[in-house]
Amino acid sequence: MAAKQAVAVIAGVGPGTGAAIAKKFASLYDVVLLARTPASYESTAKEINDAGGSAIGFSADVQDEASVKNAFEEMTKKFPEKPLAAAIFNVGGAFYRKPFLELDSQMFKTGFETSALGAFIFAQAAIPHLLKAVDQSPAHPPSLFFTGATAALKGGPQMECFSPGKFAQRSLSQSLAKEFGPAGIHVSHLVVDGLIDTKKTKGWMKDAPEDSKISPDAIAETYWALHQQPRTTWTWEIDIRPYVEKW
Amino acid sequence: MAAKQAVAVIAGVGPGTGAAIAKKFASLYDVVLLARTPASYESTAKEINDAGGSAIGFSADVQDEASVKNAFEEMTKKFPEKPLAAAIFNVGGAFYRKPFLELDSQMFKTGFETSALGAFIFAQAAIPHLLKAVDQSPAHPPSLFFTGATAALKGGPQMECFSPGKFAQRSLSQSLAKEFGPAGIHVSHLVVDGLIDTKKTKGWMKDAPEDSKISPDAIAETYWALHQQPRTTWTWEIDIRPYVEKW
Amino acid sequence: MAAKQAVAVIAGVGPGTGAAIAKKFASLYDVVLLARTPASYESTAKEINDAGGSAIGFSADVQDEASVKNAFEEMTKKFPEKPLAAAIFNVGGAFYRKPFLELDSQMFKTGFETSALGAFIFAQAAIPHLLKAVDQSPAHPPSLFFTGATAALKGGPQMECFSPGKFAQRSLSQSLAKEFGPAGIHVSHLVVDGLIDTKKTKGWMKDAPEDSKISPDAIAETYWALHQQPRTTWTWEIDIRPYVEKW
Amino acid sequence: MAAKQAVAVIAGVGPGTGAAIAKKFASLYDVVLLARTPASYESTAKEINDAGGSAIGFSADVQDEASVKNAFEEMTKKFPEKPLAAAIFNVGGAFYRKPFLELDSQMFKTGFETSALGAFIFAQAAIPHLLKAVDQSPAHPPSLFFTGATAALKGGPQMECFSPGKFAQRSLSQSLAKEFGPAGIHVSHLVVDGLIDTKKTKGWMKDAPEDSKISPDAIAETYWALHQQPRTTWTWEIDIRPYVEKW
Repeated sequence: MAAKQAVAVIAGVGPGTGAAIAKKFASLYDVVLLARTPASYESTAKEINDAGGSAIGFSADVQDEASVKNAFEEMTKKFPEKPLAAAIFNVGGAFYRKPFLELDSQMFKTGFETSALGAFIFAQAAIPHLLKAVDQSPAHPPSLFFTGATAALKGGPQMECFSPGKFAQRSLSQSLAKEFGPAGIHVSHLVVDGLIDTKKTKGWMKDAPEDSKISPDAIAETYWALHQQPRTTWTWEIDIRPYVEKW
Repeated sequence: MAAKQAVAVIAGVGPGTGAAIAKKFASLYDVVLLARTPASYESTAKEINDAGGSAIGFSADVQDEASVKNAFEEMTKKFPEKPLAAAIFNVGGAFYRKPFLELDSQMFKTGFETSALGAFIFAQAAIPHLLKAVDQSPAHPPSLFFTGATAALKGGPQMECFSPGKFAQRSLSQSLAKEFGPAGIHVSHLVVDGLIDTKKTKGWMKDAPEDSKISPDAIAETYWALHQQPRTTWTWEIDIRPYVEKW
Repeated sequence: MAAKQAVAVIAGVGPGTGAAIAKKFASLYDVVLLARTPASYESTAKEINDAGGSAIGFSADVQDEASVKNAFEEMTKKFPEKPLAAAIFNVGGAFYRKPFLELDSQMFKTGFETSALGAFIFAQAAIPHLLKAVDQSPAHPPSLFFTGATAALKGGPQMECFSPGKFAQRSLSQSLAKEFGPAGIHVSHLVVDGLIDTKKTKGWMKDAPEDSKISPDAIAETYWALHQQPRTTWTWEIDIRPYVEKW
Repeated sequence: MAAKQAVAVIAGVGPGTGAAIAKKFASLYDVVLLARTPASYESTAKEINDAGGSAIGFSADVQDEASVKNAFEEMTKKFPEKPLAAAIFNVGGAFYRKPFLELDSQMFKTGFETSALGAFIFAQAAIPHLLKAVDQSPAHPPSLFFTGATAALKGGPQMECFSPGKFAQRSLSQSLAKEFGPAGIHVSHLVVDGLIDTKKTKGWMKDAPEDSKISPDAIAETYWALHQQPRTTWTWEIDIRPYVEKW
């Protein structure tokens, strides 16, 4: 495979969406994988490298400014001359679903910090690189994408420690789209509405048709389609769901 | 070019978005162009045919049930064995912007009938064909797409004869997505938010950067990206705007 | 009861919400009731007059410009000196719920014309009177209120001939709020989300708690609360639903 | 004035909205004022008591679980037999508006903790009392109201440390409405969209009409109108803005 001209960084690369996005973006870029532990990124990195792509993982906790800063410095050392073409925040967020009076403020903080504070810290680390990339005439506009969920659009019962962080992340992505769009960074929020087809969900929804779970590879294609949009023609928000989903 | 396996029909193919969508979908399909007068589709049809694609135009008034029915019958006669892979409603709608008290109920009806009644009639003609296509294992799920506008999401002053029709069309597309999604038809509403770069708008917004108008070809790429989504992973709504747009 | 200083006109006054609103507004105003047939307004008018209030009904078809114009002229003749304090559009709309392919374009037109065209014609007749009232220092700002429904906010399966008209009416009310708010007219859209407690719905939802239907009198109180807002502090949209409603 | 039958607690009672709400609710209830420092609640408490009402303030930091718990215990000691009729979260939130790259993660946390964590902690303290009140047949359904802002509905440039907390608070209020509505608690989110007329904003917007700022007393009337709604007929969300506001 030809040497890559630019880099893509993906935070949150467990099996499923993150890995699929990484593989898709590896078709054009060196990919940098961020996860709390090497166990989360090693197999994806190996798979990409084995297929002739270029991937490297760094351990980073997105809720910890120093940790994220450090990972971006490692990235710069590793790829000193290459522009950052895409930064994708795909961290799932702590999922608590319980009666409200059984939740506690620590769960609320954790829910918020994974989804929203993590997105904030990641965006602050990525944006200076993406701004620099704007002037380097990349193949596609530098992109900052956030993986959202149904819970980013409506709150349901017992979702008080999950939805607020997702709402906050969506808000953040909208502010960033409006602030950095005119500067040339493509900010998008992708709402994944439904169950994703992963190893973990294999046994779930046995009575539904076989193809009623969202395909991680097809999600990755949608991220890639948005990334390819020229800046005359950008999308901020898109919803993604299986054909059988009620909404 | 290889013979096409399926057909795409596009209503509303003046210069700009409609023509660009037609050309894009012509890469895989025979395209059928509907417009009120041949003058609106002839140059696009010629351009596609000259480039080795296959296009044919039929005159049809989307507000007239008999006229649309007739055009679909012509289509079936012309391509008797081929599934309908995509039906795209891209009719611009009558645009009235005046102080409310200077508008009249005829303008209101016209605004509504172009945007909403036309979409209804087009959908009723297309859906039986799209349903049949579901069983014919097409390359991509049969798609029914509607071109929307900012005015589909919010009403502004003096927009009383334009926005309501666009709201109604968006509502229609949502109902159809929920009713026919489970049956295998991919229904989407694409919100074009900003000025499109066409001959007509050439001189407009002279003080803005050169690339501050939406590219019809890039819009067409986005339609194509949605059309390619497998049914595990569909989008109902997407916004499209230039990087400098305030929103 | 003291002589009234101003007039309120209500279109759509069958039993239920319309009658309740009329009775509430009769506490301060002469009320004018519009309905297609006297049978629809007679009992409410009688009830108000018997209770010492002042009510008069005029037959009018809101989809017919001449008919509405005529009713407003009758109103002016009857109350030549009095400002119009409130105009309330509460016409229910034709409700079709069927599989899309069993609907026809005439139903679509009818659905649209009752909800949206009727609202347009009513607003055009009322606004000149409301603008005049602004300068007459009424007790409360002249108000133009529209009764909306869940279907104004989201489309569902088989709602293709009902939701679009409601979306369109909501759009109209938003444009009018933005155009005439600065001129001193308070435009609101009230979303009634749930079953209203009327004679007709008496037997429905037998398994639900007794108080699980919306109270027409409580709806009327909410309309009245909005009408009382000073122009420093207006509401455009409000949702109204019973405590047990899922949403 | 007659002895009060129930209690209302208001968090965030600086001059302006909080004080106006407290005074309005004091017409029927003993009011408990929560603020970080006595300086914030003393003058409002005095004003209510001097007018023959009943008000008491407790110092509490809504971001601190122990502090809020303690204040609610004080409340219970002070009014041991009385149901809690209303709990209103009116804490303004830390307002940062700066270019994103000049913000830091501590500001993001603070913005979130004031608006969202504070609301969570307050709701957890209030809901057990409100649930108990449901069975005590109060004059009006026990209410839990949140003061929101435009920034709860859309993110703007440079609002990355303010909007996310407001989005999160709105999400929380929606989840709570859906979880505790069926149990009899009326949860509402009131979107204040515009400049409020307070001492602080006196000099602002000098070129606008005199009545172009939102009246705190009229806001309080709107809160009161929602509080009076019977549970057949509740509102979750309402917008409040001056007639001249662009939106």
